[in-house]
Amino acid sequence: MLDSIERVRAGEPRAVARAISAVERGGADARATIGALYRFTGKAFIIGVTGAPGAGKSTLVNALAKFFRRRGARVGILTVDPTSPFTGGALLGDRFRMQDLSGDAGVFIRSMATRGALGGLASATFEAIHVLDAAGFEIVMIETVGAGQSEVDIAKHAHTTIVVEAPGMGDDIQANKAGILEIADVLVVNKADREEANATAAVLEMNLNLKPRIENEWRAPVLKAIALKEQGIAEIVAAAEQHREYLRAHNLLPARERARWRAELENILQKQLLARALNGKPLDAWVEKIAAREMDVYQAADAVMEE
Amino acid sequence: MLDSIERVRAGEPRAVARAISAVERGGADARATIGALYRFTGKAFIIGVTGAPGAGKSTLVNALAKFFRRRGARVGILTVDPTSPFTGGALLGDRFRMQDLSGDAGVFIRSMATRGALGGLASATFEAIHVLDAAGFEIVMIETVGAGQSEVDIAKHAHTTIVVEAPGMGDDIQANKAGILEIADVLVVNKADREEANATAAVLEMNLNLKPRIENEWRAPVLKAIALKEQGIAEIVAAAEQHREYLRAHNLLPARERARWRAELENILQKQLLARALNGKPLDAWVEKIAAREMDVYQAADAVMEE
Repeated sequence: MLDSIERVRAGEPRAVARAISAVERGGADARATIGALYRFTGKAFIIGVTGAPGAGKSTLVNALAKFFRRRGARVGILTVDPTSPFTGGALLGDRFRMQDLSGDAGVFIRSMATRGALGGLASATFEAIHVLDAAGFEIVMIETVGAGQSEVDIAKHAHTTIVVEAPGMGDDIQANKAGILEIADVLVVNKADREEANATAAVLEMNLNLKPRIENEWRAPVLKAIALKEQGIAEIVAAAEQHREYLRAHNLLPARERARWRAELENILQKQLLARALNGKPLDAWVEKIAAREMDVYQAADAVMEE
Repeated sequence: MLDSIERVRAGEPRAVARAISAVERGGADARATIGALYRFTGKAFIIGVTGAPGAGKSTLVNALAKFFRRRGARVGILTVDPTSPFTGGALLGDRFRMQDLSGDAGVFIRSMATRGALGGLASATFEAIHVLDAAGFEIVMIETVGAGQSEVDIAKHAHTTIVVEAPGMGDDIQANKAGILEIADVLVVNKADREEANATAAVLEMNLNLKPRIENEWRAPVLKAIALKEQGIAEIVAAAEQHREYLRAHNLLPARERARWRAELENILQKQLLARALNGKPLDAWVEKIAAREMDVYQAADAVMEE
């Protein structure tokens, strides 16, 4: 790793890919990579793009990337699938939808589809953002699927989160949209040439208006787009940049960044403390006692702590 | 808490509700509740129901609950929304969709829509399942939204996971379904009176067939249902029970349960070890150094460990 830092910083794709693989592996590799690159971070504009399957996230990310490329910015893209496809299909799907971008050396695309614990994936994504940031990508986009806690966690990494909806999705009671609306800084109704687009936009506006208005608080705009035809993209970028300015003007970025680092630091400390406390000794005997209902998990924890 | 254990065990709704609130609060309250109830657990059949918004999960849970009630079984339902609605709308939505069940003392419904960390929600859900199990609910259903890591985590709590799809959802490349297919023990195409139902079922079958066949491995059946009209419910229950028998016949439940308890035990130990190590001392100074790029998070962790 150490001999290729200059190549990572120059944005050389294979070096960047290797550095992200290192943070995905975690442990000493992640430590060495972050140790070498962290001081070069803090410059990228980090944009999260999320929404339900079928909303057209990848197409929108593709269109946004092309827009930023025309301005001359270099663009790094992480597609994060918190579930673990057994087919590798997600990756193929992304490649298909983002084929416009292939062959452009100013664009780096990486799928973070990974088995393993959420903490692992969220941490690896956070560190991969730092790799792309250090590698000089002015724009880093993180694409995630759905509205689960993992997306909320990953949204915390982004400066600006764009939530994509397709017309007519959730023809159901709209309440289940509340969660995803909460993380949205910019809302996009994609596929806006469909007839239900105006109705969907109106429902989103209505849901946003349920939230009590707080003075000086950012209100997510609801924008319409046809990502496939690259229509409405400039407006989305303008809204994202207004949001970024809002964060700067209200000095909100430092608090976000500190909260994230505190969580990461606690996460690393917890793992190290547990490893040190157990010192290679397995927990199996305690797990057996819990399974046999001889003690509950808290009693087992007490017993381990006493040892 | 301690004086109402008998009332929890008798399934008295207010006592059960208080016990679940106690595990949601965590800390000493969760500890006391689990300590009192854990030895009475291990009897419930735990069914997870998940799928994208709009698939009709709540309607299906409602229909399944009515089916089980006709058999005389008591049914506990946890609806888990890993995001945090600012309106409380999700809860209203659930109540609306499950109004058939209201007034039936043999049914207990609780929304776990909770702010806070994923670990917190996953742990609280796990413990709430134990409360319902100890309270004598023979059937415990956990309804979750979406396909994120949090749903996968919660699926680990269930014996049998039912994944619900609506016809025509994900008219997109189907690859993003792979993740949710992996957790499905039973697949249901709901709203099967829509014309795309057969096509959606065929796509699901096709995706399942991409998975390499392993001898003696459970193959998730793809079933059609119209939950609103309570059609196809008996077949879903039969498939879920076949899956439960499969788990028993292959002795797969003990390993699942142990893996879950191991993760919970590690989680509790990590928190206790960190609290003991910091002993009330804040991490602020280290977070500041990280934010200032004076050190990276791993160096900060090393420094804290040395202290």
